[in-house]
Amino acid sequence: MEKPEHHIFVCASFRADGDAKGVCKKKGSVDLLPYIENEILDRGLNAQITSTGCMKACDHGPVMVIYPKGLWYGGVESEEIVDEILDALEDGEVADEYAL
Amino acid sequence: MEKPEHHIFVCASFRADGDAKGVCKKKGSVDLLPYIENEILDRGLNAQITSTGCMKACDHGPVMVIYPKGLWYGGVESEEIVDEILDALEDGEVADEYAL
Repeated sequence: MEKPEHHIFVCASFRADGDAKGVCKKKGSVDLLPYIENEILDRGLNAQITSTGCMKACDHGPVMVIYPKGLWYGGVESEEIVDEILDALEDGEVADEYAL
Repeated sequence: MEKPEHHIFVCASFRADGDAKGVCKKKGSVDLLPYIENEILDRGLNAQITSTGCMKACDHGPVMVIYPKGLWYGGVESEEIVDEILDALEDGEVADEYAL
C-alpha cells in the first residue's frame, strides 16, 4: 500500500462514546479541515490528513501533529497559521512560533 | 512538551458530522482501545494512543498506524494481534503478517 510522505493529524476532540467535545473542536479545528485538504491539493503535497480524538495536549489546542517528522503544533486557529506550518513543511523547516 | 517515543493511531471511524461509522469501528477497533492502553502500561512502553477518523485504508480495517516509524497495520481484530504488533515494536521489528 502506498503511504503518504506526510501524515497530518488534526485533533477534532472526538470521543468514543458520543459527540466530539473539547478544546480543539471548540476552538475551530474541525472548521479548518477542508482548508487544509485544499492546501494539500493546491501545493501538490504528498500528504494525508486525519482527524483524531484527544491527543492530550489540550492546553495547547487546537493541536496538529505531522508524522513521520514528529512535529507537534499548538494554537492552530486560523488559515494563516496553517499556511505558515505548511510553508515550513515544504521548506523542510519548523514553524517555530507554533511548535510544541 | 514531552513527545511519546511511539504514537499509535487506531482508526475508530470517527466522522466530523456525527456518530462513528465505517469498517474499522464495525470490526471492533474501538473495543480494543482499553486493551491497547493497558498493554502500553504493562509493557512500560513510552507510547501514546490516539483514536482517529478514517485513515483511508478501509479495505484493510481495522487499521492501526504507528509513528514515527510509519508502520501501517491492517486486520487488527483481536488482542492476540495487538500483542504480536506490540511484541514486534518492542523488538524493533515489524509484524509482517499484518503489515500494509
